[in-house]
Amino acid sequence: MVEKVYVTYNQVHKLCQASAPHILSSFQPNLMIAIGGGGYVPARILRSFLKRPGSPNIPIQAIGLSLYETLSSSDPVEQVGTKVTRTQWLDLSSLEMSNLVGKNVLIVDEVDDTRTTLEYAVRELEKDVEAASEKMGRGGEKTRFCVFVLHVSAQSLFFMREGTEMEGREGLADWELQNKDKPKKGQLPQDMIEENRYLAANTVGDVWICYPWEATDIDDHDRLAALQPVVENK
Amino acid sequence: MVEKVYVTYNQVHKLCQASAPHILSSFQPNLMIAIGGGGYVPARILRSFLKRPGSPNIPIQAIGLSLYETLSSSDPVEQVGTKVTRTQWLDLSSLEMSNLVGKNVLIVDEVDDTRTTLEYAVRELEKDVEAASEKMGRGGEKTRFCVFVLHVSAQSLFFMREGTEMEGREGLADWELQNKDKPKKGQLPQDMIEENRYLAANTVGDVWICYPWEATDIDDHDRLAALQPVVENK
Repeated sequence: MVEKVYVTYNQVHKLCQASAPHILSSFQPNLMIAIGGGGYVPARILRSFLKRPGSPNIPIQAIGLSLYETLSSSDPVEQVGTKVTRTQWLDLSSLEMSNLVGKNVLIVDEVDDTRTTLEYAVRELEKDVEAASEKMGRGGEKTRFCVFVLHVSAQSLFFMREGTEMEGREGLADWELQNKDKPKKGQLPQDMIEENRYLAANTVGDVWICYPWEATDIDDHDRLAALQPVVENK
Repeated sequence: MVEKVYVTYNQVHKLCQASAPHILSSFQPNLMIAIGGGGYVPARILRSFLKRPGSPNIPIQAIGLSLYETLSSSDPVEQVGTKVTRTQWLDLSSLEMSNLVGKNVLIVDEVDDTRTTLEYAVRELEKDVEAASEKMGRGGEKTRFCVFVLHVSAQSLFFMREGTEMEGREGLADWELQNKDKPKKGQLPQDMIEENRYLAANTVGDVWICYPWEATDIDDHDRLAALQPVVENK
């Protein structure tokens, strides 16, 4: 049975708060893209902490992605496939959206577990923005995508390099070693990794994360979270 | 100085939870539309409580609306105008979205204060869905819009009728009387009010609501919330 880790709202809030300085200094986002539904809450919290006095809020656009586990009976190699479908996407023909060409875009989600959804989001957004900028005659301008998640599960850590370490995350190198051989379903672009355009606020083992917005009894959820060994806000 | 009311994450969570049975039985939503950024958090929480066993999640679409206070120097009657601009909208030409014709759609936001944003959202969504259904040759099918907000401020209460009262909200009639003459900037369609397609989880006076996702110190925010007279979760 997979171990459950309970995360409270205030822990989520503090993870966003703790990550904001790094996001501001390294990513300098002009726009956030929240992957719904999991990215809605962290994106909204993060917006408060990314606001600089005298500057307007960093706008949030939402996209919707659903992950379906599909059983393929015809292909014995790919017995279980994973299909991502769009339920909402950006309107890149609109004026606001065409403005993102050449800017820094921060993609926000709750958890990076199998990486399937993130791979899809990054790949498709890069492709669509590239096509839009070509169409505008601005193909030379590179739009820079960054990723922020609340949690990355250990099995995905092979893709993280030493540059993504945060203060107090010295254990990361060990995770990389331990999990090197674990297979991941999705991959992020090599240049995103090399340029440290990926940030997970916290690292967890191969556990099931219980987010507060899924709790049927939030008091009980908080009680269970308090009983856990401290894994948040290191 | 306007009085501040501090609302915790868990209070927001419980407001959504307490409202879910009424939303399920009366509104029976097929789709949620979250007005960003305020509607993101309640919409995501609500999704958990609207899920029925054996049924898929009710999908969330996000729209983005910004409220600008504009100073009009030329028109002495309208000295301060309020302009709503779209930062994100629905793609009604997509297959998923065309499916909402004839369905029940729940619009979700955090607070109904001046009602300006809600008026805009309901009016424009009704108009666009009507146009889309005409185009599809399904003009006879009525799409039913409902509204859910966490809080309604007393000054907007004139628009609420006795039918929108919830258990334990007996004080509502008084508010209606007391605030009858207060001017509101926005209005909701008459049939939405008459058919009770509006629900505010809680009623507050003419106060400034501090939502937790805007707190720079969440522990201090919770402490201030605990010091208040109980106004939530009646």
